[in-house]
Amino acid sequence: MLAIALALRHWVGRQKLEHIIFEADTPSGKLFDVVLLVLIALSVLVVMLESVDSISSRMGRTFGILEWILTIMFTIEYVTRLMAVRKPLSYATSFFGIVDLLAILPTYLSLFFPGTQSLAVIRALRMLRLFRIFKLARYVEAYTTLQRAITLARPKIIVFMIAVLTIVTIVGSLMYLLEGEQDSGFENIPVSIYWAIVTVTTVGYGDISPTTELGQFLAAVLMITGYAIIAVPTGLVSAEIATAGSTVAINTQHCRNCAEDNHLDEAIHCHRCGVKLEFEED
Amino acid sequence: MLAIALALRHWVGRQKLEHIIFEADTPSGKLFDVVLLVLIALSVLVVMLESVDSISSRMGRTFGILEWILTIMFTIEYVTRLMAVRKPLSYATSFFGIVDLLAILPTYLSLFFPGTQSLAVIRALRMLRLFRIFKLARYVEAYTTLQRAITLARPKIIVFMIAVLTIVTIVGSLMYLLEGEQDSGFENIPVSIYWAIVTVTTVGYGDISPTTELGQFLAAVLMITGYAIIAVPTGLVSAEIATAGSTVAINTQHCRNCAEDNHLDEAIHCHRCGVKLEFEED
Amino acid sequence: MLAIALALRHWVGRQKLEHIIFEADTPSGKLFDVVLLVLIALSVLVVMLESVDSISSRMGRTFGILEWILTIMFTIEYVTRLMAVRKPLSYATSFFGIVDLLAILPTYLSLFFPGTQSLAVIRALRMLRLFRIFKLARYVEAYTTLQRAITLARPKIIVFMIAVLTIVTIVGSLMYLLEGEQDSGFENIPVSIYWAIVTVTTVGYGDISPTTELGQFLAAVLMITGYAIIAVPTGLVSAEIATAGSTVAINTQHCRNCAEDNHLDEAIHCHRCGVKLEFEED
Amino acid sequence: MLAIALALRHWVGRQKLEHIIFEADTPSGKLFDVVLLVLIALSVLVVMLESVDSISSRMGRTFGILEWILTIMFTIEYVTRLMAVRKPLSYATSFFGIVDLLAILPTYLSLFFPGTQSLAVIRALRMLRLFRIFKLARYVEAYTTLQRAITLARPKIIVFMIAVLTIVTIVGSLMYLLEGEQDSGFENIPVSIYWAIVTVTTVGYGDISPTTELGQFLAAVLMITGYAIIAVPTGLVSAEIATAGSTVAINTQHCRNCAEDNHLDEAIHCHRCGVKLEFEED
Repeated sequence: MLAIALALRHWVGRQKLEHIIFEADTPSGKLFDVVLLVLIALSVLVVMLESVDSISSRMGRTFGILEWILTIMFTIEYVTRLMAVRKPLSYATSFFGIVDLLAILPTYLSLFFPGTQSLAVIRALRMLRLFRIFKLARYVEAYTTLQRAITLARPKIIVFMIAVLTIVTIVGSLMYLLEGEQDSGFENIPVSIYWAIVTVTTVGYGDISPTTELGQFLAAVLMITGYAIIAVPTGLVSAEIATAGSTVAINTQHCRNCAEDNHLDEAIHCHRCGVKLEFEED
Repeated sequence: MLAIALALRHWVGRQKLEHIIFEADTPSGKLFDVVLLVLIALSVLVVMLESVDSISSRMGRTFGILEWILTIMFTIEYVTRLMAVRKPLSYATSFFGIVDLLAILPTYLSLFFPGTQSLAVIRALRMLRLFRIFKLARYVEAYTTLQRAITLARPKIIVFMIAVLTIVTIVGSLMYLLEGEQDSGFENIPVSIYWAIVTVTTVGYGDISPTTELGQFLAAVLMITGYAIIAVPTGLVSAEIATAGSTVAINTQHCRNCAEDNHLDEAIHCHRCGVKLEFEED
Repeated sequence: MLAIALALRHWVGRQKLEHIIFEADTPSGKLFDVVLLVLIALSVLVVMLESVDSISSRMGRTFGILEWILTIMFTIEYVTRLMAVRKPLSYATSFFGIVDLLAILPTYLSLFFPGTQSLAVIRALRMLRLFRIFKLARYVEAYTTLQRAITLARPKIIVFMIAVLTIVTIVGSLMYLLEGEQDSGFENIPVSIYWAIVTVTTVGYGDISPTTELGQFLAAVLMITGYAIIAVPTGLVSAEIATAGSTVAINTQHCRNCAEDNHLDEAIHCHRCGVKLEFEED
Repeated sequence: MLAIALALRHWVGRQKLEHIIFEADTPSGKLFDVVLLVLIALSVLVVMLESVDSISSRMGRTFGILEWILTIMFTIEYVTRLMAVRKPLSYATSFFGIVDLLAILPTYLSLFFPGTQSLAVIRALRMLRLFRIFKLARYVEAYTTLQRAITLARPKIIVFMIAVLTIVTIVGSLMYLLEGEQDSGFENIPVSIYWAIVTVTTVGYGDISPTTELGQFLAAVLMITGYAIIAVPTGLVSAEIATAGSTVAINTQHCRNCAEDNHLDEAIHCHRCGVKLEFEED
């Protein structure tokens, strides 16, 4: 696989290769991305269907072969990416660099530890590259607005989360005291905390539910509380979105040095490695 | 049925017909729409009750006849619509044109494939014509505001949906690895993803629920995450509504006596001069 | 009971009586309201506990007597109210007038139809008078803001509701077609629609849940949809509250003529009957 | 334990001690807080794991000893706090003063009433001190914004809660009338009200669920209502957050007199006891 990657680099040239793989604006870059996405979607589907007994008993062999072909292709792609970019380490430690590596590891691991090939669904994360193809201003804009709103609301959400976890710990323990003797599933405090989380988030499986009067009363109080406090994160994010509404113009041109994309339109230097950005006009 | 439609066109005239069928402002148009709505509601009710064994065993025959009468009437209506409008193709390919066709097809299909008449509930979609009758400024306004807000928020909602689907795929697969051996329902990855969707949307049926400690921990993380991210679409839409809403249009009818407007909806007398309020009907 | 009410009117005087019963600003009026609320709370509690077998078997007799004493007291109160106000019919047809009547009827009905005394919990509605006692500016203000926000958002919520009901009808019918053969609870269309409502509102009891692959897929689509559209009413109301935030000053003085309270501070005439308002200074 | 606290006071000096224990800005104060938090987290973990049968059967003894060591340390800390502050009573009656006391009582109580040591999870509440260490402007700011938004929205939330409780009481009673005869779990009115709360908050355990047509219809109405009104608290809080967004500058310096922290930056006197604040510069 290394040989193929080296050959590709030799035949096509590093700069040309970099263009095709990291850019989505040029026709060849777009084609590459579309083909890649189809292969990713196919491989995620294969992993999913492989887990269904009735299907894998008939087509297990085909799936196994397909799985290996796709993994080898993704490996070549990963090695080529490493070679095409100027600073390979910078790419390898970036978000997508790590995802790209994690996407191929499970299949190799399954040689030594059977069963781990299911982890290959992590490839689904690679689907996020999808937005690079869309490249439609409004999707990129929507993505940035969302990201900014979440970033702005983060400290408030953390404060809120700690408060929720504290409530859940205390209510869970109280329920263990009230219902522990009963046969209603509150076997120990961790399980009771699990129940409290299931209740406060309004999921409510019903695998564990209180049977004593006092337990039902405490549960009702917790629900009403959860009902009232669910408003808090919603309010936080919607207030942030309202203020973050005025979006910044960004583009998805990538840095020649470290393959970071998502730069502000007015950016002159890459905000990750500091190298001057050289965007080409199409 | 074609004959009846042709006859109607001949006797009433195309323009007059178009007025009655497509307009809701004129008295005859309003009457037509009200009668139509009653028939639609009746036919939806018939389809529903037909599926209840205890009722259909007694009244199955009556329902069958009623069903056919209504279908024939809707067919005549559909053909007449095609004839009344200037550009039939334009109507046939419009949203309501397709719905009108789908509303009559299932009954005819049931001649060849028994059981498909239940599909006739698609007629419920025709109920959306309801808003045309209301034609009250505030309902139309409300509808427009809603539509605008959803249109504006759409790219953000799509970005959000893709993120949710990615999370759900990965968490579902992890749960399959953790709980697949147990007898807790995580039989394969598609079912586990179904469970993850049930959990993240806080529906929580409880037909599948984790039993191992690690599974319950992962489920709790997913719930807390779902709890936090449910805020995102809400925040999006409410921010859009706030900006899209040149909202405040309530009871702005003015008092005939002192020209005071802004009356409470339940007000019968002007709260300024005490004279009885006489609002005009449109 | 009529005799007592007449005697009260004679001894205390109509105007004085009206003051005590309908006003909450004077010391005697406040005392009356507090005593009334305690009695209402007591009577609701009695009805609740009466339904618990283990309690009613021991104390059923005490409860029965208490129930009748309270009902007779409420009857006297109702008759006195009718006599104290200038236009009895106007009070009798107002919201609280009807609630006050419904609160005493079930006990009398239980003489003829055993079991109906449980309906007496409708007395809980009378607890809403609570706010009149609070009379704290911020609670009245909060109440008005809420009421206005809901009134403003009403047409949008109605439009939204019709859309939800249409979706639920169609998805419910489709599920009946997909799962009706299975033993998963989708017995007929009304039950399937009930399931769709349980799902789209994220309640998710789990008494009915899909078992086929296609059914689970459709359910997942419905959940994701529900997840996205739950944002709509939230957004509507929160946008309305934000704009309705600047509250109007209102007071709880009642109209001497028809007992309507909740008037705008600047109101000179009652917005219900048009009579000039004569508020007293305490 | 009193002896140790006295010795500490003698050796270190009251003022120095006060600095270390109540201040989080100085290096020694920060170290003290970090060590304390680790011990609190450890003790909460011990209480949790002790309740898991499979773990406590093996390590019960170790846990018991650890539990007592931690309790004695917390007792010394509590006594020292009482001694270090100028007005011990003022600290003892503050929120954290009560929590600190409640955190050590359960272990002592377990000597007399076995089983009560589970109550020691109340120590989790002490984790809230966490925010004092962070002392990062944005977390303190986030905390203040949240607190203000909730304080501002409180009267509205109370009004809303009373309305929800009224609805739940009435619907619960109606369901008891409709389903009480069936074997579907609606045994008495309190249980039916518990079901109504489970439903309206969209938790939906499914341990109790209607089986009659009328019951399912009423449940569906309640769900749709709950779906619509869940928007209200959300809207309230998010509107408040939007307006409360402009935060006030506060700091976590503590009052020398009563140990109250969270003072406004411009505060000159403690808002709890009125003593002049003497903040030191680091």
